Amino acid sequence: MRVDVFFGASSLTSADVHGRVVVVIDVLRASTTIAVALANGARTIIPFDSAQEAITRSKSFERGEYKLAGERRNLMISGFDLGNSPRDYTREAVEGQTILLTTTNGTGALVAVQGAREVLVGSFVNYSAVSAMVRAAARSESDIAIVAAGHDRHFSLEDTTCAGRFVRSIVKGVPGAELNDGAQVALLLDKKYGSDLPRLMAEATHGRTLAEAGFAEDLVLCSTVDAFPVVPVYQDRHVTKLGPDRER
Amino acid sequence: MRVDVFFGASSLTSADVHGRVVVVIDVLRASTTIAVALANGARTIIPFDSAQEAITRSKSFERGEYKLAGERRNLMISGFDLGNSPRDYTREAVEGQTILLTTTNGTGALVAVQGAREVLVGSFVNYSAVSAMVRAAARSESDIAIVAAGHDRHFSLEDTTCAGRFVRSIVKGVPGAELNDGAQVALLLDKKYGSDLPRLMAEATHGRTLAEAGFAEDLVLCSTVDAFPVVPVYQDRHVTKLGPDRER
Repeated sequence: MRVDVFFGASSLTSADVHGRVVVVIDVLRASTTIAVALANGARTIIPFDSAQEAITRSKSFERGEYKLAGERRNLMISGFDLGNSPRDYTREAVEGQTILLTTTNGTGALVAVQGAREVLVGSFVNYSAVSAMVRAAARSESDIAIVAAGHDRHFSLEDTTCAGRFVRSIVKGVPGAELNDGAQVALLLDKKYGSDLPRLMAEATHGRTLAEAGFAEDLVLCSTVDAFPVVPVYQDRHVTKLGPDRER
Repeated sequence: MRVDVFFGASSLTSADVHGRVVVVIDVLRASTTIAVALANGARTIIPFDSAQEAITRSKSFERGEYKLAGERRNLMISGFDLGNSPRDYTREAVEGQTILLTTTNGTGALVAVQGAREVLVGSFVNYSAVSAMVRAAARSESDIAIVAAGHDRHFSLEDTTCAGRFVRSIVKGVPGAELNDGAQVALLLDKKYGSDLPRLMAEATHGRTLAEAGFAEDLVLCSTVDAFPVVPVYQDRHVTKLGPDRER
């Protein structure tokens, strides 16, 4: 059984994910935002590469059924209902809604992993819930691919540290798993930062950028382990919550 | 002054390297092979993405002036003169020759960094020589980009550890340099493996693959720091040796 960690969607080919259980991680902030939205009752989240695609798609919904959401350079897109700050995704804002989401990095990674057996969206806030699913898959001999989406197409400390937390959990459950070099370095980062996430956020480039842009509270939320224990599943271009609420 | 480490050519855009001094690293084995070839008197090395391009270009040379060189899946390409094992690049084999080189990873990275101010080829075997050039550039406020070419388009431990050695040297010479997340993790790997390169080669996926394919001696050569102290410069699609021999 293999556990591979890959950095960024641009390096992925379909062979890397084909038939695997895949976890896509974009801690700051798409993955966290998705977990928070689903935990607060959003019906589904549809990721888009561009704002224009999201706007076009919104025309197929009744007003009141959907929210246009997303950011460019960390800020809400003009004319949209929500940015990419998970704190915006309150129950009041998202319950029962379809979220049409476009972000700089995270949604691209979701689109790149088509062909996987199952795609889950992981972050610190839903770590244990997603990790339980992944460990179960690993025990039944499914190969695992974890995609640390990264920032501006490049490697990011926070996504890789979070990936390392998943790798650690898988390896503990399934000793003898084969790890690629990305998974090895993810374990190293988990060891360095896993018990001090505020330090991780302070040293990661994107964490510093967000703090400077006034989103310091987002960093606290994004590093609160298991605060929103949902399992987001990406299927047929929609992200929905696994569990009894999935069909609603 | 910035020091950024990037993983793989596929993630690079021209903005990442524009106007910078760039070091391209593919320890196993293209960078090492290039250093060994130049140290042993090769006139120039011309990298190609495909074997066919190299063959086509060879027709513009007299037989006896060039060597067709390169690998696919670690093995010499059928009909070629040299593989990608640096031990093949003896003085006898390469002195005065033009090497037409195609490899799985390393040459692609060289092609991706066009637009840089200067492109150097780094590895463990020519670390101090290249590092001296890079430190000088950093002291004169040039931003530095280090490309850890990686293996099969993915992150590799050996390239990133070597990149970390360069970052450490730059940071020592120019305190206050700004590091991206890739540079930070490279430093972490340098700290872990920098004084135990045999362990690095034993734990890196590509190192293990090469050992299993019968290239264990290559791993020893590729991790011998400063064994071939040349500065390979990539310019106008040619790699030549910086220094008094450059013009010959």
